[in-house]
Amino acid sequence: MNEYESLAEKRIKSETKFHGDILHIVKDEVTLPNGNQATREVVRHIGAVCVVPVTDDGKVVMERQFRYPIDSVISEIPAGKLDSKDEDRLEAAKRELREETGYSANKWVDMGIYYPAAAYSDEKITMYLATGLTKGTRQLDEDEFLNVELIPIESLVDDIMEGRIADGKTQVAILKAAKLLGRI
Amino acid sequence: MNEYESLAEKRIKSETKFHGDILHIVKDEVTLPNGNQATREVVRHIGAVCVVPVTDDGKVVMERQFRYPIDSVISEIPAGKLDSKDEDRLEAAKRELREETGYSANKWVDMGIYYPAAAYSDEKITMYLATGLTKGTRQLDEDEFLNVELIPIESLVDDIMEGRIADGKTQVAILKAAKLLGRI
Repeated sequence: MNEYESLAEKRIKSETKFHGDILHIVKDEVTLPNGNQATREVVRHIGAVCVVPVTDDGKVVMERQFRYPIDSVISEIPAGKLDSKDEDRLEAAKRELREETGYSANKWVDMGIYYPAAAYSDEKITMYLATGLTKGTRQLDEDEFLNVELIPIESLVDDIMEGRIADGKTQVAILKAAKLLGRI
Repeated sequence: MNEYESLAEKRIKSETKFHGDILHIVKDEVTLPNGNQATREVVRHIGAVCVVPVTDDGKVVMERQFRYPIDSVISEIPAGKLDSKDEDRLEAAKRELREETGYSANKWVDMGIYYPAAAYSDEKITMYLATGLTKGTRQLDEDEFLNVELIPIESLVDDIMEGRIADGKTQVAILKAAKLLGRI
């Protein structure tokens, strides 16, 4: 018996509890490895991308954005949901960067994936490093509000280490980008 | 008008859509800064802690665990939900480390917080670095299944940089711990 077989849980039944615009909630009954049954509550999410856009002089294009669930304005890297389950992730990242900040980039590096909450959500975020930036005009939706600012990547690493960046994907992606760029 | 006032959304009404054992889903109507109305779907979560336990010889106590939402066995640091909203977070971290791995630690460093998905969840995770480890006996629940393994922290940093660690909190907390310990 391999590791997957020895630890995996098997679905017995699945019930949709909420079908929203962004969140889809299911409550499943599963069989555990010891034969007992248990319940699993799961968020099904379309998936997302995020980008660390770094200028030639080592500054990151950051966003200040209100996040309703935590009732706070926080600093984040540009990010967004996929338009569809099978949208090309790099294309989605290029779109989000352009729409939210106005920047486009001529070099893109895939920095791997990130499950924000694998215990209860299937959301998968792909992280990119974008360099060779050119500034254009941003195209926010009428109902989208965020401020853009440029921050030196070393300052952001300090902010992360000192606990001043709350957002998970932003912490991971900036630490990875800083290490890739030899700035950590 | 300060930044919060210029970006904040105001709740008009809130409706519970699912009240589960772990996830509590609300769908709220809000007023945007431009006066338009919008809908926000939010996961309310009790909160959690995670720990990077590092042995005297620089190895991290890691867990291999099945995660039902992504149907995979993945490597994670020890972590767990709070028992109650106002449980002391350090005490929760000590409990999770002891129960899941059998280890206790004589030095704890608060590495700050981490919002896994601030766009749609209020879950807040506090990250700790634990050193001065002593091994005891783990006390898993009857229905909890996970394997413990010790991995050098430098190897884990490589795994993160190469995209072999999928879990978000594990990526952040290990990169922070490695930097604090001068191993990055």
